[in-house]
Amino acid sequence: MEPIGFLRTSQEKKYQLPPQPDQAQWGGVIELLQGRNYDVALRDLEGFQRIWVLWWFHKNDNWRPTTLPPRGRTGRKGTFATRSPYRPNPLGLSCLDLIAVDGLRVHVGAHDLLDQTPIFDIKPYIPRYDAFPRSKAGWHDELERQLSQSPTYRVNFSVEAALAVADREELKRHIVEVLSEDPYPHRTRRIIEYGSRYRMSCGDWRIFFQIESDRVRVEKVSLRE
Amino acid sequence: MEPIGFLRTSQEKKYQLPPQPDQAQWGGVIELLQGRNYDVALRDLEGFQRIWVLWWFHKNDNWRPTTLPPRGRTGRKGTFATRSPYRPNPLGLSCLDLIAVDGLRVHVGAHDLLDQTPIFDIKPYIPRYDAFPRSKAGWHDELERQLSQSPTYRVNFSVEAALAVADREELKRHIVEVLSEDPYPHRTRRIIEYGSRYRMSCGDWRIFFQIESDRVRVEKVSLRE
Repeated sequence: MEPIGFLRTSQEKKYQLPPQPDQAQWGGVIELLQGRNYDVALRDLEGFQRIWVLWWFHKNDNWRPTTLPPRGRTGRKGTFATRSPYRPNPLGLSCLDLIAVDGLRVHVGAHDLLDQTPIFDIKPYIPRYDAFPRSKAGWHDELERQLSQSPTYRVNFSVEAALAVADREELKRHIVEVLSEDPYPHRTRRIIEYGSRYRMSCGDWRIFFQIESDRVRVEKVSLRE
Repeated sequence: MEPIGFLRTSQEKKYQLPPQPDQAQWGGVIELLQGRNYDVALRDLEGFQRIWVLWWFHKNDNWRPTTLPPRGRTGRKGTFATRSPYRPNPLGLSCLDLIAVDGLRVHVGAHDLLDQTPIFDIKPYIPRYDAFPRSKAGWHDELERQLSQSPTYRVNFSVEAALAVADREELKRHIVEVLSEDPYPHRTRRIIEYGSRYRMSCGDWRIFFQIESDRVRVEKVSLRE
């Protein structure tokens, strides 16, 4: 196994990854390696609306038998029952919109991959083999049911915090997205209790906030010291 | 990358594989390796109706930039636009019915894998991420349209041929399936023209037949000499 190419995209830090692939802000370009006939192998791919991309979770080198899902409060799950990166073989599988093929460059839509992710394979998405829209999804169905019922939180910023994110739209959007859904401590959301307050980490940023019933007040946003 | 386990199933020869995964006659059992906590990693998988199985095309060790699809007459296609086994990284991807989990054994439904196929990963099928039933499928849509219009052939057996397959239901079914759809020469169906007749290979079996308008007459079925 060796990569056929690498993804180029603006997402460089894990905190920039969307909670769901379809909520991503950026597309990307899969750049295949030169001199291997991959341009020939890409023929006829245009015309497919979506492609499967098989890739390597290159930022993970260990695995765990159980995993805490990033959303909701369903508790730890067996890793093979999740899409967690921490797998015995850290293979990623994403169904991406195919935008265009241009020589060795495959332009894709919204995705949940980091810049420089090694790509192992591209396959066409064929609904006859791949689409089972009414398939039951066990604990994941239960999670979606819970989330659709759970309260959403209103998120406010102190003046200091608002100034800190004033020219960082993307960071601000991420803070609001995560905290409005569920601001309570969680390892994979990187939220901890901190005295009587809370702290969330996003890359090198630290977000300090309080919770009062259904309100979250962001008090301070600063770089890690 | 190393296998997490291996598939056990009755399909031992490539010709026993179904033209489509959902037409398979047999299910199988993925037997995961012992002593690695994989039993814990399988927790919570029951409740999902389907799973993704990522596996290794262990009978292939080369790749080709283009591939002739096994059905229809659409001509060679770029390999990344197909599900061909002859890929730079021969990774297989199949969406299988999950029947039951029993310790380290994962029972699955109809599939298109051979016995002893190495398994790399199991992921839950989550319709929200995976199901796009109306996605366009380029040349594959065109193929299905052609096949729905193409003539089907009536298949008859000579007395000699009928006796040869009398206690080989599976071989007989395969012969009828392939020849009734399209009996003309094709590399991946392993049909060649042979004098004024035709010969198809299925594992060690050789099937000799003639074509007259929309009729196929199987004259002889014998083991390779």
